Amino acid sequence: MQTPSISRFAPPALADLPKDVRERIEAVQEKSGFVPNVFLALARRPEEFRAFFAYHDALMEKPGGLTKAEREMIVVATSAVNNCHYCVVAHGAILRIRAKNPLIADQVAVNFRKADLTARQKTMLDFAIKVAARSHEIDERDYAALRAQNFSDDDAWDIAAIAALFAMSNRLANAFSIRPNDEFYNMGREPRA
Amino acid sequence: MQTPSISRFAPPALADLPKDVRERIEAVQEKSGFVPNVFLALARRPEEFRAFFAYHDALMEKPGGLTKAEREMIVVATSAVNNCHYCVVAHGAILRIRAKNPLIADQVAVNFRKADLTARQKTMLDFAIKVAARSHEIDERDYAALRAQNFSDDDAWDIAAIAALFAMSNRLANAFSIRPNDEFYNMGREPRA
Amino acid sequence: MQTPSISRFAPPALADLPKDVRERIEAVQEKSGFVPNVFLALARRPEEFRAFFAYHDALMEKPGGLTKAEREMIVVATSAVNNCHYCVVAHGAILRIRAKNPLIADQVAVNFRKADLTARQKTMLDFAIKVAARSHEIDERDYAALRAQNFSDDDAWDIAAIAALFAMSNRLANAFSIRPNDEFYNMGREPRA
Amino acid sequence: MQTPSISRFAPPALADLPKDVRERIEAVQEKSGFVPNVFLALARRPEEFRAFFAYHDALMEKPGGLTKAEREMIVVATSAVNNCHYCVVAHGAILRIRAKNPLIADQVAVNFRKADLTARQKTMLDFAIKVAARSHEIDERDYAALRAQNFSDDDAWDIAAIAALFAMSNRLANAFSIRPNDEFYNMGREPRA
Amino acid sequence: MQTPSISRFAPPALADLPKDVRERIEAVQEKSGFVPNVFLALARRPEEFRAFFAYHDALMEKPGGLTKAEREMIVVATSAVNNCHYCVVAHGAILRIRAKNPLIADQVAVNFRKADLTARQKTMLDFAIKVAARSHEIDERDYAALRAQNFSDDDAWDIAAIAALFAMSNRLANAFSIRPNDEFYNMGREPRA
Amino acid sequence: MQTPSISRFAPPALADLPKDVRERIEAVQEKSGFVPNVFLALARRPEEFRAFFAYHDALMEKPGGLTKAEREMIVVATSAVNNCHYCVVAHGAILRIRAKNPLIADQVAVNFRKADLTARQKTMLDFAIKVAARSHEIDERDYAALRAQNFSDDDAWDIAAIAALFAMSNRLANAFSIRPNDEFYNMGREPRA
Repeated sequence: MQTPSISRFAPPALADLPKDVRERIEAVQEKSGFVPNVFLALARRPEEFRAFFAYHDALMEKPGGLTKAEREMIVVATSAVNNCHYCVVAHGAILRIRAKNPLIADQVAVNFRKADLTARQKTMLDFAIKVAARSHEIDERDYAALRAQNFSDDDAWDIAAIAALFAMSNRLANAFSIRPNDEFYNMGREPRA
Repeated sequence: MQTPSISRFAPPALADLPKDVRERIEAVQEKSGFVPNVFLALARRPEEFRAFFAYHDALMEKPGGLTKAEREMIVVATSAVNNCHYCVVAHGAILRIRAKNPLIADQVAVNFRKADLTARQKTMLDFAIKVAARSHEIDERDYAALRAQNFSDDDAWDIAAIAALFAMSNRLANAFSIRPNDEFYNMGREPRA
Repeated sequence: MQTPSISRFAPPALADLPKDVRERIEAVQEKSGFVPNVFLALARRPEEFRAFFAYHDALMEKPGGLTKAEREMIVVATSAVNNCHYCVVAHGAILRIRAKNPLIADQVAVNFRKADLTARQKTMLDFAIKVAARSHEIDERDYAALRAQNFSDDDAWDIAAIAALFAMSNRLANAFSIRPNDEFYNMGREPRA
Repeated sequence: MQTPSISRFAPPALADLPKDVRERIEAVQEKSGFVPNVFLALARRPEEFRAFFAYHDALMEKPGGLTKAEREMIVVATSAVNNCHYCVVAHGAILRIRAKNPLIADQVAVNFRKADLTARQKTMLDFAIKVAARSHEIDERDYAALRAQNFSDDDAWDIAAIAALFAMSNRLANAFSIRPNDEFYNMGREPRA
Repeated sequence: MQTPSISRFAPPALADLPKDVRERIEAVQEKSGFVPNVFLALARRPEEFRAFFAYHDALMEKPGGLTKAEREMIVVATSAVNNCHYCVVAHGAILRIRAKNPLIADQVAVNFRKADLTARQKTMLDFAIKVAARSHEIDERDYAALRAQNFSDDDAWDIAAIAALFAMSNRLANAFSIRPNDEFYNMGREPRA
Repeated sequence: MQTPSISRFAPPALADLPKDVRERIEAVQEKSGFVPNVFLALARRPEEFRAFFAYHDALMEKPGGLTKAEREMIVVATSAVNNCHYCVVAHGAILRIRAKNPLIADQVAVNFRKADLTARQKTMLDFAIKVAARSHEIDERDYAALRAQNFSDDDAWDIAAIAALFAMSNRLANAFSIRPNDEFYNMGREPRA
């Protein structure tokens, strides 16, 4: 078997990229030790690359009411609904690391209802899954369920927006056959110290 | 009945917005004669606003193999699958104008298979709908069907990316109950000159 | 592009039709200024034509607890679930006129949950959609929800029967590719005086 | 257990019915030995009753390319998709009698693909099921499949119209909880002579 | 038409079977007067045959809180969801006999919600259908609904296990095209004495 | 958080089990170093336990045309369709070991179409998924697709029977909330030597 390709669309050479895009890629490589394939795959279109990661960072990296682990739970749960190979594997790794829990990502990906989560987190994922799968049926009762678990209105926005962002991301990764790097599969699987 | 609200999340006052966001909104107001509600609704989060419209412009406004009317067809067809009130009404208006066809938006929204489209355009929408509804089943046969209608690889990327972007946009508008401006309903309905 | 055909089944010549069928068609033409294509398409089978319009008039034109606008809401909402091009466009026009509301038809067609309707009307459409999409699960709880909104038993029959009639009508129009007349698209879109 | 009711809507007394409706009911009673409950249930609304049975007779009783047994196959197969208790049981009885085959109705109701049918009849039912379940996707390829099995255009109309009529009938019987008469269950089950 | 085959996989000759398998088959033949085809079809693989019928007997023949008729209701209702020709027809016959009710099997097969069942039995079937169709969503609320109808924990296990066993059995019968014996169709249809 | 329970049904004490059941459990413990929870959960019913594992061994452990890794692929792919936490995690571990591939289980669980499989293995999984999800539509074309990839009739039986067995197993594990042992998550993840 040959080395599998990163995506069905050939990624650009790093040297050909605009400086800001190349620097962003080099920064993630420095931090992670490798370049996650989604960076290379999307760099084929620098403007879309910039918008994608700006959106991602605005939702996933900023301060806010949701922990970073909770945001990754939303990503993994909704990406599993969309059968997105890249996102489940890559964000599963990030979830394990951020939650410091080597089991949680596989649990959330297969069936979050059986995962080792709090009732509050399950309410959060119920809402996220509804955004992913049948957003047109969302109404104030869904927001009331979040409030009953002490989610603020801004938390509700975050949950919906993260689920929506990955509705996009999952479709890009599926349509373009973006392959998760082999490194992701085992990241964060060592037991908690 | 009171004036219905723009969104379930109160929009910010224009005066409170960062300058670039406010200027973007003023520019669209100047061009359209009114501020489309999605601008106000998303301005509540300036960083997300910037990323959203940067992505939008990168796909919808740039030159490329698809006509601007065809891009709007993708938006209307996939937004109808997601029952997105805002996107079907607002982009339906833009489609009528760009296609110079007062009937096409309603046709595409209800059932693109019965719309006055070319076979090539129906192939484009078959692909877009598959991205919207079951992207995990996309494979090289889908790309071959596009090529057989003379869509380039870059056109295929555009179709997929537009469908993916509105997978996000539809979920935001549905979850946030963003209401289309009354002005959109009748835009472009006058017969072709 | 040629003049598109009214239906995949060639309609009969008016002169060849039985007198009562022809007179019914001439009457609608006089009233509307044009002959809605469903009349010509179904006239190919005079006996079915007579039964169809007798059923239609018995439910849509008689006095009763539902307003005529409400009956058209049922038609538009359920026809949208069935992706019926003819019925959404033609009955959307009638709904705009009967409700004296230029926005309501597009709202109901895309997602009645976001439309400018009363809670009572949304309950009516919840029931109608259940008849259209999963009638075998209807039970007395559904009737109780109608009663709680002051719908009588006869109103409940009307809602169910209208949804059922258009379950038939949508399938005929879809299977026969009956095309809505161009006139329908813009009817009733002028703002309320 | 009490005698179960015919329908959730109380049927009218025969003596209170218009003469033509009463005579139609008496005629079927004479022929069958009992009054099928759908006649009593729908007689609550004489105008709708007349239209319903006029439509029914126009499609089910007239001469034409489909045998009467084949028409009942369409009814049973589509009514099973809609989980219609009344129609599967009552028309299952008629199918057994018209096909002179005591097994065929149960086979068609559970899975027509495994039933003792000809390839031509399975093509007919493929089309009928598509009309019942996703009529908006019907296109000329479906009609070509019928032609390849020597169905005429008028046969195609009949198949679609019967499936559409029972799309209505199934929803009425489900929503109104119309109960099949006990007599239907065993009719036509005696082996062929 | 030729004698239809028992299954798409040729059944073995009785004489070639291991003694215990042959004796099991002869015992059922003696009791029923014929050999149900599932015995012959599965005997092609003696080890699987032994496990299948051991499982079946452990759930269907043992003493327990559910009556034997109720167990057959579970089989018929879930097999209908899976469109299993063999299981609906064969277990429909057993249900009629065990319930001493000639109508019940057809009612349960088409729509158990409209069948002549107690509220307790409908709760049992709601649970069984959920096991059949979306077991991953089962949670303690489903068990609470059973307890509210006086089902014990062991009854709940039985309901789930029977639904699960026939999830397997339905798929085998469907994939292997196992045909129900003609004898089953009319068994138990004579009215109660 | 307390130690999570093995299942919602309390497992029996080993000492209380029949000798053969206890010995089977001790044997697996010796081999694996721990007792997989499904053994303890199902041991609550010794007869069902015996039948379950007899069936399992007859299909998963015997010689045959499918490799043991391929059989586990079928289990993981179909269990993912059913969102079965226990089966995806436990059999994912076994698949990694049998395939000597640390990545394959996660790939197959999320979307086998994107997994590092041969075309022949994807054909095998297409068939298995059809057995899992819509077995009533299986016909000879599905068997022909298997034959075209050199699967024998006995291989086809094995694929269908494994998918059917886990249709049962998934529903048991989901309904009983059987929790996979923590040990499974990391088994077989070390890279190939």
